[in-house]
Amino acid sequence: MFCFKNGVSVTHTSLLDRAFQYGDGCFTTAYIKNSEIQLWSRHLNRLHQSAECLMLHFDETALEKQLIISLSEIRDFNGTLKIILSRGEGQRGYDFSREKEVDIYLLFFPSHQKATPYSTIAACSILNNKIGITMPNLVGVKSLNRLEQVVLKREATDKGIKEALVLDIQDRIVEGISSNCFLLLNGQWVTPYLGYNGIHGVMRAEILDRMKKSHIICQEREVYIDEVTNIQAMFFCNALHPMQAVQTIDNHILDDQITKQLFDLLKLDQM
Amino acid sequence: MFCFKNGVSVTHTSLLDRAFQYGDGCFTTAYIKNSEIQLWSRHLNRLHQSAECLMLHFDETALEKQLIISLSEIRDFNGTLKIILSRGEGQRGYDFSREKEVDIYLLFFPSHQKATPYSTIAACSILNNKIGITMPNLVGVKSLNRLEQVVLKREATDKGIKEALVLDIQDRIVEGISSNCFLLLNGQWVTPYLGYNGIHGVMRAEILDRMKKSHIICQEREVYIDEVTNIQAMFFCNALHPMQAVQTIDNHILDDQITKQLFDLLKLDQM
Repeated sequence: MFCFKNGVSVTHTSLLDRAFQYGDGCFTTAYIKNSEIQLWSRHLNRLHQSAECLMLHFDETALEKQLIISLSEIRDFNGTLKIILSRGEGQRGYDFSREKEVDIYLLFFPSHQKATPYSTIAACSILNNKIGITMPNLVGVKSLNRLEQVVLKREATDKGIKEALVLDIQDRIVEGISSNCFLLLNGQWVTPYLGYNGIHGVMRAEILDRMKKSHIICQEREVYIDEVTNIQAMFFCNALHPMQAVQTIDNHILDDQITKQLFDLLKLDQM
Repeated sequence: MFCFKNGVSVTHTSLLDRAFQYGDGCFTTAYIKNSEIQLWSRHLNRLHQSAECLMLHFDETALEKQLIISLSEIRDFNGTLKIILSRGEGQRGYDFSREKEVDIYLLFFPSHQKATPYSTIAACSILNNKIGITMPNLVGVKSLNRLEQVVLKREATDKGIKEALVLDIQDRIVEGISSNCFLLLNGQWVTPYLGYNGIHGVMRAEILDRMKKSHIICQEREVYIDEVTNIQAMFFCNALHPMQAVQTIDNHILDDQITKQLFDLLKLDQM
């Protein structure tokens, strides 16, 4: 792993960093192929949106400059990039200065494995732990407050599953643990509306855009638990895995041919 | 400030620390008078409850040992102690090992000012930003996911106020920004029920206990926004400030004699 803070190679951060004290920041995780960040403009766009919600003062030019320098230093890079924006060091207490610029952390995790844009999940289920309803102005933000995902992931690991459907406390299907989801319901593609909670994923946005261009109708709407039995096909997606097609949900067999056809049609192996 | 991690003096933490990456941990903030931690058993009790909710493996004996050593090192200490329990370093991803023991951080902030167990807030109001509904098994936990408080504090600072009443998205009064609250409603002391969100404060628990022993009835119940006009008196409390009596809420004058009488009766200057 290679780490840089504001362009300087680092291994540590201050104990007074607000990311450590309060999770006061946001992040994005991108896939890098041959030193090129996939879906870069979407990641950048989301960083801007998150920064705005969190009132973080974020300089895009500084980030892009740091990325060019660090990528030239590590050369021919393949793997994962995690960008963390932290409000930086603070005093005791929640108050902060609006003027201070964010600290930019770049963490590169190399991988020698070939990416798998399409994969399958043999068995998927619905988790018992349910996520809450987010403070309205933090909805969709990929912030550093990720305890819900930590709890969900623990439940999935204990059950021996990799991904799972996550409900909220009002029994709406929201997303996967670390991905968004698309469902085929009564012959119609649907992705849950994320107006109360959940993460506004970059791959979700990319897929919705490609569907639109291919004239495939996809509804964004609230989906309640009682619709689970009507799911004919489904897949999860995130920036590192464009499509994870689900083969069974709670022993109910799904159509994974139709997801593969969609994958090919949308050319999800090309980002 | 003096900082110790697992008994060793430190200034930094690893970038891979899960507290930094996900806010994966919890904390408590205690007041220390003449090297003695006030309400220690309550703080310890809450750390245990939080650790249990977060599935953190926490060794109480190790914490107590570290506290004795660090307090003997800094001597005759007066000020604030912040104890942070972090799940520690991890790999990329939300998954964690159940076996790993937590990292214990002790941060001592000295203060030469005398503590003010009783203080007044001239003008208080209700914030526009509302907190969400928490994932059920994280309710009450003083976790390191504190972005809601950061947003609330910003609004208060922009309005020039120090503390304020915080509603949730269902228009229930929950707490202050960094404190709990007690309200006198129709001649009856009430403190909001914290079953959906909010922090289970140690001073709140102490005051409830002292009220009980003094035969002062205090209801713990849901309080909705339409009851605000009926508030006759109110105060905020936390481990560093036992009573912050409110003099006006949204220009409506409150009875701060009755809060002072309660303060004296409960002997809140003695912890």
